[in-house]
Amino acid sequence: MDTVDVAVVGAGLAGLSAARRLSAAGHTVQVLEARSRVGGRTLGGFLSNGVPVEMGGQWIGPTQQEVLDLIDELGLQTFPTFDNGSATTVFDGKVVRYDDETFGLPLESASEVGRLWEQLEAMAAAVTSGSPWESRDAAVLDRQTLDAWLVANTRDSIARRFFRLLVPALFSAESPELSLLHFLFYVNSGTSLATLVATTGGAQETRVVGGTHQISERMAEDLGDAVRLDAVVRTIRQDENGVTVEFEGGSVRAQQVIVAVPQTLAGRIRYLPPLPALRDGLTQQMPAGSVIKFQVGYDSPFWRKDGLNGFVLSLDDEFSVVLDNSPHDSSCGVLVGFLEGAHARVANRKTAEERRELIVTALVKYFGPKAAHPFDIVEQDWTAEEFTRGCYGGRLAAGVWTQYGTALAEPVGRIHWAGAETADTWNGYMDGAIRSGHRAADEILTTLPWKTSGASPVETEIRER
Amino acid sequence: MDTVDVAVVGAGLAGLSAARRLSAAGHTVQVLEARSRVGGRTLGGFLSNGVPVEMGGQWIGPTQQEVLDLIDELGLQTFPTFDNGSATTVFDGKVVRYDDETFGLPLESASEVGRLWEQLEAMAAAVTSGSPWESRDAAVLDRQTLDAWLVANTRDSIARRFFRLLVPALFSAESPELSLLHFLFYVNSGTSLATLVATTGGAQETRVVGGTHQISERMAEDLGDAVRLDAVVRTIRQDENGVTVEFEGGSVRAQQVIVAVPQTLAGRIRYLPPLPALRDGLTQQMPAGSVIKFQVGYDSPFWRKDGLNGFVLSLDDEFSVVLDNSPHDSSCGVLVGFLEGAHARVANRKTAEERRELIVTALVKYFGPKAAHPFDIVEQDWTAEEFTRGCYGGRLAAGVWTQYGTALAEPVGRIHWAGAETADTWNGYMDGAIRSGHRAADEILTTLPWKTSGASPVETEIRER
Repeated sequence: MDTVDVAVVGAGLAGLSAARRLSAAGHTVQVLEARSRVGGRTLGGFLSNGVPVEMGGQWIGPTQQEVLDLIDELGLQTFPTFDNGSATTVFDGKVVRYDDETFGLPLESASEVGRLWEQLEAMAAAVTSGSPWESRDAAVLDRQTLDAWLVANTRDSIARRFFRLLVPALFSAESPELSLLHFLFYVNSGTSLATLVATTGGAQETRVVGGTHQISERMAEDLGDAVRLDAVVRTIRQDENGVTVEFEGGSVRAQQVIVAVPQTLAGRIRYLPPLPALRDGLTQQMPAGSVIKFQVGYDSPFWRKDGLNGFVLSLDDEFSVVLDNSPHDSSCGVLVGFLEGAHARVANRKTAEERRELIVTALVKYFGPKAAHPFDIVEQDWTAEEFTRGCYGGRLAAGVWTQYGTALAEPVGRIHWAGAETADTWNGYMDGAIRSGHRAADEILTTLPWKTSGASPVETEIRER
Repeated sequence: MDTVDVAVVGAGLAGLSAARRLSAAGHTVQVLEARSRVGGRTLGGFLSNGVPVEMGGQWIGPTQQEVLDLIDELGLQTFPTFDNGSATTVFDGKVVRYDDETFGLPLESASEVGRLWEQLEAMAAAVTSGSPWESRDAAVLDRQTLDAWLVANTRDSIARRFFRLLVPALFSAESPELSLLHFLFYVNSGTSLATLVATTGGAQETRVVGGTHQISERMAEDLGDAVRLDAVVRTIRQDENGVTVEFEGGSVRAQQVIVAVPQTLAGRIRYLPPLPALRDGLTQQMPAGSVIKFQVGYDSPFWRKDGLNGFVLSLDDEFSVVLDNSPHDSSCGVLVGFLEGAHARVANRKTAEERRELIVTALVKYFGPKAAHPFDIVEQDWTAEEFTRGCYGGRLAAGVWTQYGTALAEPVGRIHWAGAETADTWNGYMDGAIRSGHRAADEILTTLPWKTSGASPVETEIRER
C-alpha cells in the first residue's frame, strides 16, 4: 500500500494548521474530516438578509499572534468589535447601565468582585504555564472545585452569582464542574482574566470580515486533495513500520498521525494497540461545555443610538451574555448571545420556538421594545453536533489535572495530539488550536527526514475498501 | 435480512441476564461481546498451584437477592468469607490490631469517624432512591465534592484520611472526584455505608466456590449460539422499522437493542441518528475508577494462626486494602488487595516487578516476615483492559447527577441501557448489573409481543460482511 507521510484526523484549525506546516516542509499529508465541511468549531452562517454570521468561534484578541499572523497570510481582513457606549448588567430585576469597572453592581459587591478577581489573577499568574500539575500547591488547587473556592472566599451573594455567571461565559460549564486549578491554568494560558473578559484590549477585540470559518476554508483550498471530507475515522492501528488510519469507506497508511479533534471525540476512536490507561482515562473525563449560540438580526443596531455598546451580563436570565455582533459595515444590527452550561442543558429539552421566545423576551428586557421584532434569529446547538459534542472546549474537573495532565499532549508512539484543548497558550481558543497544530507538526518534523518543499509532490494514496 | 428480536451489546452479567430473560420469554436474541470471553468485570484466574482466584468482582452480600437467586438457579455453591480474628489498621507508622468498631483508630478520631459516618448514613437514607436528582437539596449536595464536605465537616486529620481511604476502597476514585450526591446515592443503593464496608453482614460476606465468572459462563452456555464472542460493536443505526447493530465482521438486525457496557464504553459506539445531547453528555463524564487487583498466594493462611482475619486498611500505604481470600477448603492461603484511585494511577507507570515489591513490602509490614515469600502473585489492571477501561464502576463528579441524571437509563428510541452503573439498587455491584439487565429486558417485554417459551425457536441470523 502506498502511503502519505502524515495523516491528520480533523480539519479544524488545529488539523489544518498542522497539515499546512507539514506540507510546506515537503511532506505528504492526508487530512481526514468526518463532516462535509472544514472548520470544526468555526462555522459560517447567514441571516435571512444575506449578512454572514459566525455560528461558532469568532473573536480574536491581542497576543493571539498565531491566528493574527495566519489571517494576514491568508489575506483576510479584520475589524474591531463595536464597543462604544454603556454596558448593561441585570440582577434582581434591575437593568443597570454602566461605563466603569463596577460591572454595574452595587458598590459593596463590585468591590468584593474586584477583591476576588485580583486574588484569582494572582493565583493564575503563579500557575506553571503548560504544566499546571507542577504548580506550587497543585494538589490543593486541583482538589477543590472553582465553586468551592468561591463559597469559601466570599459571603457576598451577588459576587458569588457574578462569578457563577462569568464561569459559564468562559467555559460553557458551571463553577462546580471544573477544578480551581483548571480555571487558573486556563486564565494563565489566556494572559489574565481581564484579557479573557474584555472586548477592547481583550479576547473579544477583533473580528474577521466575512467570518472566521474562512481561515480554515482558505487553508483547505491550499491543501487541495490532501483534505478528504466525509471521512469518519474509526480505528488507528500502529505497528513497527507505521500507522493505518481506518475511516468509514477506506484507510490511509502513514508514518505518523495527528489526532486533532476534541479529547472527548479522540476517545471514541479505536486504537490498536489500546492506548495507555492514563491517556484513555484523560479522554474519559475531559467533557465539552454546553452552549447554544444565537444570532439575532435587526434592521439597524438601534441600541447604539441609545448609547449602549450591546454588551449584557444578566445574573437573572438564562440568556445571560449578549454582545453587539453587527457586520463591519453596520448594514444591519446583530446581537449575539448564548445559552451556556446549565442553561444550555435545560434549553436542550425545549423546542426551537420556546428558545426563540426566551431569547426575544430577554432582549426586550435588556434593550427595550425595539428588540421585540428581529427579522431573523439563527441558532447553533453545539452539543447536538455529532462531531463536536459541545463547546467552547473541554474542561477538567477536580483531581484530573494532577493525575492525568501529563497525558494531554504527550505522543503515544506514532500518534500526536492537537486541538485547542492541548494548547499551552490560549487554550480553548482559535489561537490555541493553531498553536497546537504547529506544535504537533513540529514534533513530527523532528522525527521525519526534512524534505525541501517541492522535492516530493503531495501524493495521497488512499486504498478504497 | 433476517433479524433477531433483540440484540444485546456486552456479555457481562447485565447483558447475559437480559438475554436470558428475553430468551425465556420466547424472544430471539443475539449477544455481541467484544472480548473472547464472557463475564465483563468478573474474570477467573489461577494461582500457580492451580487454585482458582477471581481477578474481578467477587463478593456477594445480604439483600443482593438477584445475584443470590441466580447463583442458586445455576447450581453454584457459596461459602462465607473468612472473618474470624482481629482486623488491622495502619497509620502514622503504627500497625494496630482491633476487634471493635474503632477501626483501630485513636479514640478521639474513632469517635469523629463515627460522628461523620452517622451523618453520611442519615443523608444517604434521605436520598431519593434511583432518582437522586429529585432528592431534597439535590442541587446543594451535587454542587460539592465529597472531599469538600469532609473538609467542611471535620478538622480531625486522621478522620479525613480515613474517609479519603474508604472512598477509593468503594469507588477506586478519590474523594474530590465524585459529588457528595453521588456518594450518597451509591450508599443508598447499597443499603448503607455499614453494609458496603462490612464483611460479615455486609457486601463482602459471601463468595462463590470456584469463582463468580461461572455465573456468566453458565448463562452463556444456556444461551448457546445466541452469544457471539470477538464481536466489537462499532455502530448502532436506528430507523423506523428496527435497529442494525454493526460489529467488526458483521451486523445484526433487531427490533430493539440493549447496550450493556459501562457508560464510558457506550459513548464510543457510533449512533445513527446521533444520541441526544444529554445522553452523550452523560457518557462524556461517567469515567471509570482505577484499580489494579492482586491475589497473593501462600502455602497456608498463616495470619489466621496469629489471630488475624486478614482485613487491613492502611492510611499510610499505597496497597491500602487487603482481605483474606483463601479458597473455601483453605488448601492454601490467599490475600487479596488493591491499588485504587490515585495509587493505581501512579502504579500504572511502574513495572510489574516494582508493583510486586511494593505489595510484598506492605504485606510484611501488615503480617510479619511470613508474608515475605508468597509462592505466586497475580495482578489484574482493569484500567488497561480495552473493553472495561476501569473498575469498580463509573462515577459522577460534581454537578453531573442533577444536570444529566435522567439520561442514565432512559431508553433512546429502540436503545435500552443496562450495566451495573444504571442500577437503582446495588449500583456498581454484580447484583445491580443483573437487576439492570432484568430491568432493560422488562422494558422490551412491555413493547414486544409476548411469546411463550418454545413457540419461536432461537434463531439468529447474522449477515456476514
